[in-house]
Order: sequence, then C-alpha cells, then structure tokens
Amino acid sequence: MAPWGKRLAGVRGVLLDISGVLYDSGAGGGTAIAGSVEAVARLKRSRLKVRFCTNESQKSRAELVGQLQRLGFDISEQEVTAPAPAACQILKEQGLRPYLLIHDGVRSEFDQIDTSNPNCVVIADAGESFSYQNMNNAFQVLMELEKPVLISLGKGRYYKETSGLMLDVGPYMKALEYACGIKAEVVGKPSPEFFKSALQAIGVEAHQAVMIGDDIVGDVGGAQRCGMRALQVRTGKFSDEHHPEVKADGYVDNLAEAVDLLLQHADK
Amino acid sequence: MAPWGKRLAGVRGVLLDISGVLYDSGAGGGTAIAGSVEAVARLKRSRLKVRFCTNESQKSRAELVGQLQRLGFDISEQEVTAPAPAACQILKEQGLRPYLLIHDGVRSEFDQIDTSNPNCVVIADAGESFSYQNMNNAFQVLMELEKPVLISLGKGRYYKETSGLMLDVGPYMKALEYACGIKAEVVGKPSPEFFKSALQAIGVEAHQAVMIGDDIVGDVGGAQRCGMRALQVRTGKFSDEHHPEVKADGYVDNLAEAVDLLLQHADK
Repeated sequence: MAPWGKRLAGVRGVLLDISGVLYDSGAGGGTAIAGSVEAVARLKRSRLKVRFCTNESQKSRAELVGQLQRLGFDISEQEVTAPAPAACQILKEQGLRPYLLIHDGVRSEFDQIDTSNPNCVVIADAGESFSYQNMNNAFQVLMELEKPVLISLGKGRYYKETSGLMLDVGPYMKALEYACGIKAEVVGKPSPEFFKSALQAIGVEAHQAVMIGDDIVGDVGGAQRCGMRALQVRTGKFSDEHHPEVKADGYVDNLAEAVDLLLQHADK
Repeated sequence: MAPWGKRLAGVRGVLLDISGVLYDSGAGGGTAIAGSVEAVARLKRSRLKVRFCTNESQKSRAELVGQLQRLGFDISEQEVTAPAPAACQILKEQGLRPYLLIHDGVRSEFDQIDTSNPNCVVIADAGESFSYQNMNNAFQVLMELEKPVLISLGKGRYYKETSGLMLDVGPYMKALEYACGIKAEVVGKPSPEFFKSALQAIGVEAHQAVMIGDDIVGDVGGAQRCGMRALQVRTGKFSDEHHPEVKADGYVDNLAEAVDLLLQHADK
C-alpha cells in the first residue's frame, strides 16, 4: 500500500472527476475504466459523502448521466456539479445574454436563457462546432462590446477519447482572449467557487475532502488551492507525474486503488 | 502638414504593408483603399526604394500580386517579402517535414517541401480550414513529438475584410501553444529577421527606412524594435491611436498622406 495513504486520515467527502476517472468518452458512448464501476459502488456504500465534479460541457447532465448509467455506474443527475448550470446562474444574476459557442449536446441546459442581441460570449467544449465561422462570430460579438465578457466552461487543454487526445475548450478560450485582448471568466474547475459549490452540496469542508482526477492542473492543483487534498489517477489523459508547479498528495493507478486507500485510511 | 513630418528626414527606403494599406481583402478580390494605387506609383517614381512586406499567408505571392495588379497596383512578385517562402527556407535548412495547417491558396508555395511523416507543424492564416478536425490533427502531431516545433506565419490577432473583422493566425497559434505547453517560432512580422530580409532586398539600413502599416504591434512596434521608423495609417483594421506600449512615429489618414509627407521630407 502507498506510504502516503495516511494522508487520507479524516477524509469525510470525495469529489470525483468523471472523464478519465470513471470512463473515457468516445464513439458509442465511451468505455468504463477498469474497476471504476465497482469503485463508485463501494464508495457509495461507505460512510463517505460522494459528489461528481466535472468540467464536461459537450453534454447536458441528463445525457452524461444516462451514458454513465448505461455503462453500469450508480449516478444520478442530482449528484453532479457541472459548469453549464453554474454559468446559467451567473448569466441570470448579471442580466447577460450570451452568444453560445457550445456543442449542440449541451444546448438544452441553456433553454431558459435569453440569447437575443448578445452582450457576452459563453464558450464550452464545442468539438466540431469550433469552426472558423463560429469562432469568428464569437470574436465579432466580443469586439462590438464596450466591455467584452467571455465566460469559459473550464479551461482544460485536452482530454482523452478512446480514439486519442482531443482539444478541449481551453485552447479556444486562449484564442479569443488573445484576439480581443481580454481575460475570460472561467466557470468550472479549477475555479474555487466551483469546487466550493460541489463541497457545499455534500456539506463537507475543504479540509475534510479529497478530489480525485486525471488533470494535474484543473483537478489536483485547483482542489489543493481550495484547501482540499487531491489524488491523481494514472488513467485518462495522465501521462507522467512531473509537473513544474503541482504535486498531488498521492498517485494511484486508477479509481479502484484510490477507493481501496480511502476505505482503509479515511476513518483514522 | 503634420508637425512630426521632419522625423522622416534621411529616409531612403520604404517598407509597405499590403492588407489594410494598399487594399482591404474580401469577396471578389477586395477593394483598393482610396488613393493607394496612385500613392504606390508616386513612390516608385521617386528616388526612394520600395519593398512590400506582408504577413499575407492565405494566398501565394503570385495570386496576391495578380489580385493587386487587377486593382491597378504597380507591383511584381519579386518586390514582395512574404512569410511562406521564408518558412520554406527554414524547413529546408533544418530538415523539417511539416504538417501544414494552411489555406489551400498558399499550398503551392510549399510544393517543394516534403510533408511525409511530419516532425513539425506550420500554421498560417487558414481561414475556413481552421476546422476542429484540422486543429486537432496539428495538435496530435505536436503531442507525438519529443520536441514539438510549431512555426507560425505571423501572429496577427485579426485583419479587416470588406465584410468585417476576421480572426488571423495569431489566435490559433496561441491555442496550439496553450494546448501543447510550447512556444511557437514566428516567421513574418514582427520578427526582426523578417524585417531585416526585406531591408536587405532593397539594400537599405534600418535607420534609413520607414515601415508603413495598419497594425500597431506587428508593423509599427516590430519595425521600431529593428531600429526603423514607422507610421500607422488610419485605414484597414486601425481603430485608435492609444496602445499601452507602442507609439508610432506618426499617424496618417492613409498611404496617400504618408507618401505626401515622405516626398516632402525624406530628402532633407
């Protein structure tokens, strides 16, 4: 067993990243990562509080949860913290009407949002919808505004599909930032507000919680900056353990190993 | 007449940006900017040496020059410094085989370049070819390399077509830089090597030359860092004279006014 396992003492709540930890997305709904279905089930039978904390912004929560259920996961929509609903709250509070540069799969999350005469841009992992035309539309909307507002659902560099690495929303956010000379507001990991809202949903304090993810910056670094502990799994887009700035509290082969350690050490 | 006109004393050579100074590109070949056809003709009848120095990377020099000739400009391919030929020289010198993320219009400039089994990426103003699929192909090529090499033909933020502002190559260069955690090598303005090769072609020293462009960073700032003087025209994508870091030696309404001032002051 990992010698750092004792660092998990006193953990009461667990935040789980989804893509790269539970499953790899891809054609036909993707594939579950070996051992993860059982690992989630074991966690949920334990005394630990569990919350899914994802930057997934290609699919609505309903679609995402449906896919995961079909792969065998015990998960419901109410257990998922995702950036699209968080963005909708900000849009409503601030009276913002977005031009939506998003994937059709997530459009239903914005059903209640006024998109006429846009006064901001919301960018998400749009996949094939990141055409030059759509990017240029978003750029032109921003350049027409006196104070351009760009809201980005996460800022991940890339993620892993079963077919290979895929560009995430972050590079396209950077493109619009540079084109317009502005700074985006990020909704999702690694934004502290986003982690806090996930913790709030399970009534757990940051120092009592651990984040488990495959993204060293978005998952591990972001959670640590909020006062949480964080483990990196060697699945999904994981490539190596050497990052110039971020070091996880522990590294595990997969979610199954993380759950083994948690169930052994958390209560101590 | 502009009081700063005397700053043009001793100028022997003139570098002219093309897009936004000579013409605005767009459907049907674009439109000449009022007075620019005559201004170029007057310059070429004078004792001043003239060189066209462009970051145009959607078209081959042959196509660009053909379009400008049809608009009435006195210009030949041999008078144009453009980034694609400069990039080809680097590729040959360094034994690089590029994945080309470029517009079909400029592909002929790379006819002599081996593109099999790519060991670098060349990115240019690809326009509609900036699809998610093509960007992801370039990203995957870079991520497979031990030392990823990204060569960008310019790094402009945007340019003006007759139909409005259009995203240039710069934002997409930034996207790949962020995705891969690398820094691109820029071939074209504002790279000093590029300005120097344009000056060399007309046998003029930097302190004897003036750059005329609409881009405060790429044209004006870049030329000034090379020891040249630089004027910004209020045509093309020009929007205002307030840039936090760069100040032109003079501002003119258009190329015609710049040529008036040059012909009046350069010889003094």
